[in-house]
Amino acid sequence: MSTRVIRGVIGYTITPFAVDGSLDLPALGRSIDKLIASGVHAIAPLGSTGEGAYLSDAEWESVVRFSQQQVAGRVPTVVSVSDLTTARTVQRARLAESCGATAVMVLAASYWKLTDTEIVDHFKAVGAAINIPIMLYNNPATSGTDLSVDLILRILDDVKNVTMVKESTGDIQRMHRLFKATNGKVAFYNGCNPLALEALIAGAAGWCTAAPNLIPDLNLALWDAVQNGQMEQARTLFYRQYDMLEYITRRGLPTTIKAGLKLQGLDVGGPRLPLQPLDADGCTLLQQRLDELAPTPGVTP
Amino acid sequence: MSTRVIRGVIGYTITPFAVDGSLDLPALGRSIDKLIASGVHAIAPLGSTGEGAYLSDAEWESVVRFSQQQVAGRVPTVVSVSDLTTARTVQRARLAESCGATAVMVLAASYWKLTDTEIVDHFKAVGAAINIPIMLYNNPATSGTDLSVDLILRILDDVKNVTMVKESTGDIQRMHRLFKATNGKVAFYNGCNPLALEALIAGAAGWCTAAPNLIPDLNLALWDAVQNGQMEQARTLFYRQYDMLEYITRRGLPTTIKAGLKLQGLDVGGPRLPLQPLDADGCTLLQQRLDELAPTPGVTP
Amino acid sequence: MSTRVIRGVIGYTITPFAVDGSLDLPALGRSIDKLIASGVHAIAPLGSTGEGAYLSDAEWESVVRFSQQQVAGRVPTVVSVSDLTTARTVQRARLAESCGATAVMVLAASYWKLTDTEIVDHFKAVGAAINIPIMLYNNPATSGTDLSVDLILRILDDVKNVTMVKESTGDIQRMHRLFKATNGKVAFYNGCNPLALEALIAGAAGWCTAAPNLIPDLNLALWDAVQNGQMEQARTLFYRQYDMLEYITRRGLPTTIKAGLKLQGLDVGGPRLPLQPLDADGCTLLQQRLDELAPTPGVTP
Amino acid sequence: MSTRVIRGVIGYTITPFAVDGSLDLPALGRSIDKLIASGVHAIAPLGSTGEGAYLSDAEWESVVRFSQQQVAGRVPTVVSVSDLTTARTVQRARLAESCGATAVMVLAASYWKLTDTEIVDHFKAVGAAINIPIMLYNNPATSGTDLSVDLILRILDDVKNVTMVKESTGDIQRMHRLFKATNGKVAFYNGCNPLALEALIAGAAGWCTAAPNLIPDLNLALWDAVQNGQMEQARTLFYRQYDMLEYITRRGLPTTIKAGLKLQGLDVGGPRLPLQPLDADGCTLLQQRLDELAPTPGVTP
Repeated sequence: MSTRVIRGVIGYTITPFAVDGSLDLPALGRSIDKLIASGVHAIAPLGSTGEGAYLSDAEWESVVRFSQQQVAGRVPTVVSVSDLTTARTVQRARLAESCGATAVMVLAASYWKLTDTEIVDHFKAVGAAINIPIMLYNNPATSGTDLSVDLILRILDDVKNVTMVKESTGDIQRMHRLFKATNGKVAFYNGCNPLALEALIAGAAGWCTAAPNLIPDLNLALWDAVQNGQMEQARTLFYRQYDMLEYITRRGLPTTIKAGLKLQGLDVGGPRLPLQPLDADGCTLLQQRLDELAPTPGVTP
Repeated sequence: MSTRVIRGVIGYTITPFAVDGSLDLPALGRSIDKLIASGVHAIAPLGSTGEGAYLSDAEWESVVRFSQQQVAGRVPTVVSVSDLTTARTVQRARLAESCGATAVMVLAASYWKLTDTEIVDHFKAVGAAINIPIMLYNNPATSGTDLSVDLILRILDDVKNVTMVKESTGDIQRMHRLFKATNGKVAFYNGCNPLALEALIAGAAGWCTAAPNLIPDLNLALWDAVQNGQMEQARTLFYRQYDMLEYITRRGLPTTIKAGLKLQGLDVGGPRLPLQPLDADGCTLLQQRLDELAPTPGVTP
Repeated sequence: MSTRVIRGVIGYTITPFAVDGSLDLPALGRSIDKLIASGVHAIAPLGSTGEGAYLSDAEWESVVRFSQQQVAGRVPTVVSVSDLTTARTVQRARLAESCGATAVMVLAASYWKLTDTEIVDHFKAVGAAINIPIMLYNNPATSGTDLSVDLILRILDDVKNVTMVKESTGDIQRMHRLFKATNGKVAFYNGCNPLALEALIAGAAGWCTAAPNLIPDLNLALWDAVQNGQMEQARTLFYRQYDMLEYITRRGLPTTIKAGLKLQGLDVGGPRLPLQPLDADGCTLLQQRLDELAPTPGVTP
Repeated sequence: MSTRVIRGVIGYTITPFAVDGSLDLPALGRSIDKLIASGVHAIAPLGSTGEGAYLSDAEWESVVRFSQQQVAGRVPTVVSVSDLTTARTVQRARLAESCGATAVMVLAASYWKLTDTEIVDHFKAVGAAINIPIMLYNNPATSGTDLSVDLILRILDDVKNVTMVKESTGDIQRMHRLFKATNGKVAFYNGCNPLALEALIAGAAGWCTAAPNLIPDLNLALWDAVQNGQMEQARTLFYRQYDMLEYITRRGLPTTIKAGLKLQGLDVGGPRLPLQPLDADGCTLLQQRLDELAPTPGVTP
């Protein structure tokens, strides 16, 4: 487990579908190449943006195999392996590891509310099954389960390969408490786009985001500004991209990122039903925002 | 579509697992027979209680086929066919219909937040695919999606075979508004056990509940008391079973119903991980509540 | 302390203002007489409906003195004496007692969040200062403090003249738990109009409501139907008045009750700024609802 | 209206009480002098920390007169003039202006929920009555009213002397939206202590806080670090004081600040009942935190 922690902007991939609803792996390849070429520090397949929850087991397996081959070690990867059952999460984690994933991400997904013990044991089971690091993912808005800071600290204690925490509640106080409780030692990640400035300044080790599919230069420039301690620059860059970050997050990442890629010339299909492609008004708004943020040749963001 | 609406106490089945984690269909058969013998007015396989969300496709198919064969038309059935994708929900609804289900139940399950249009279209797709009635199921606590009364009314208008609405928010005002908006014409169902007295008195057409697995006499006596206009009797019966209803709902239905059945001599295994079997303290409490509620021979509840 | 508990429909009075903003006591007298003539079982001055929170100390004192004189022992009274400080609450409670109030009502009002000990001690201080019963009032929507069922039970234990509990959270489960925890012995009251049917059937000792200012016959008929065990009749009566109950509660009681009284011919002025008189659209809607509910001569509600 | 906007750390004063519960103005004088000597950029009497809501009218008037005399123009002042009624808010605002306040702060306090129009008109009434700037204060936790960003923008448009916005929801997104909607032109203030780092970096014009009563050096050093663009320094300073900021905010400002001042040798009495003095455990914890943060002689924070 050489790479225990990934730092930087972690770009989440979409999962392209053909018109008949089947996987479009060539388009996936192009979108991965686009992301890597943009300079993101890592690639995260099959996350919320990647519609991992909507895929069949066979599709899921195809995507993880293909993604790892396409990335081909150019950057580290974090594969989302979450499933409602422990058994299938373990199985996916093992598959990801066998395909060469650098790390896996696990959301405490649930249908029935889980007890703290059930959540800890779920992470223990995954931790025992693999030899790569785990990114614990807390996102009550999609999972229905909110892991308290205390519970996260307990998992960090009990499961040694949980080395990263992705916080998507949108509550910066969670990050403050994680930082304080571990003397700044835990690697936490921002999973809420419109909180990027604050999370990075509060000490986040990275930014988990689908935005680099569309506006990578701005995302990376913000990351760099914070790393370089350029506060004024960071603020300006953040507010420049804020409306876009807020919109794609609120309106849904698969829906908006797929629409945006199409507007940029890369057709990756629509999301899977019941999710529908972004409607005409949404596309107009998105085009407008993309135009505003388009890099002027010769000018750094 | 002769039976457009089912009235009465609708008993939800658990899904038994053997020690190796595989389906235990013989135990399922016994639990279905127990429920029917107790007098419930209908059987609902594969709902939240039935851990439908935790099954593989193959398992799901086995359970629906087996359940329909076991019920064998003795009472109507409502099969939960919810899935995250529209395609799989439609496929399951068709399978349920082909196996002889009286009706299907559809939860607006989601990972990404759905727009109103996406929700309506999801129900339209299911409605167009089958010729049996649909029970719309609103349960934000498990699905993450809360359907407003206005949206439910729109679906009732747009999808003709949505003829029943199961409300599990625990907010009795939703039922009041459904009643008023349809002049008492919509068939709504109580899906929140500790609200049973109020929902039935407010005019609910039925009570969707897993409680009859354990205390069917009390559940049915409450239903009967309300139907007979025996208000004082209904109140007494409700408070008698209240602590049990509250506990199984709060602590989780698969967990508690499976533990309770075992205490009553029917071993149906534990729930599927990450859900764990009820712990020792919980079993003691449950046994105590069962003892308190045990029917005295020769005394009606 | 002969009357420890008041049963029935407790009618809340408004506090009329003249055009110059001063108290209009003659109009208050007429509104009290109207309420008593309608048959309510008790009168409650200076509650939320009575804008008690918006009065100066001198005004408050005038209203309590005048109200007690006007009621003149025809029915019991419950005077709301809540204030942000313990000292002033005690002072108001003593004044109410000295004016002849049957009971006082105390809301755990707060600006800063109170600890449980602070809340209990607040009730202890009031309890020690007077010899008449106290109705504990829980209404987080106006007070910002939500008293848990456990805390209410603790206060009932610790402060002997707290003999009544008015629950206005709108959550019927609170009433269930109060009922179960005291074996049905605590007198609890419904303070949420659109929950009246359920609360009464769940065993409420009374209904605290401003609605009898406008539609007393329907309110009292609902009370009677439940007391007589006429379930079907109770449901019909409840749904008949539901839209009105829901509207006045949602839109604000001082605003709507004052507007409604004016529509019925009794001018009591508008509420105190920042509260504004009901606007034209609201008045039209209210008139329409009043017309629908107007008693047909010779027909019981 | 020369000073339209106040920049920097705005220190909130407590209101000392003597043992008999009366105002202790000499102690107030000492606490004001201590704050000014510490270097805060402005003084804010009678806010939430100052228990303004718990004072009689006569007490309130004494405190505002005394505070203005004591400050004596050494720094600007922002006097909280909020009251439940518009009339009394206007009266207090005029009094504050006549005493020499630099600006007034107005919380949309409410008992009954206000409509948007009622809120706007409330601010209009105050705005028309005085010639000094108004700081709009949004704090749903104490006021029960949450002003949306859109409503705040409408008030900024409609009431010209509302020139500052204090946001205490703890939701940094509100500040982002205010910034974006006004192109960074509106002066917004952080009112949530544990959000200080993020709010200042997001562009807040100041930090409204009671913390400088106890740890002014750290508060001011954080402000300075952000103004000087020293990001790393700002983060270190913030996390150093974080536990203290979090504790005093969560446990209640009058309670903890008064206890802390006593620990530091300035006896200002306890808060007014129902608020009780900080208990022994709380005092021990507070002393510990103060010790940890005590400035080492010769070392800058």
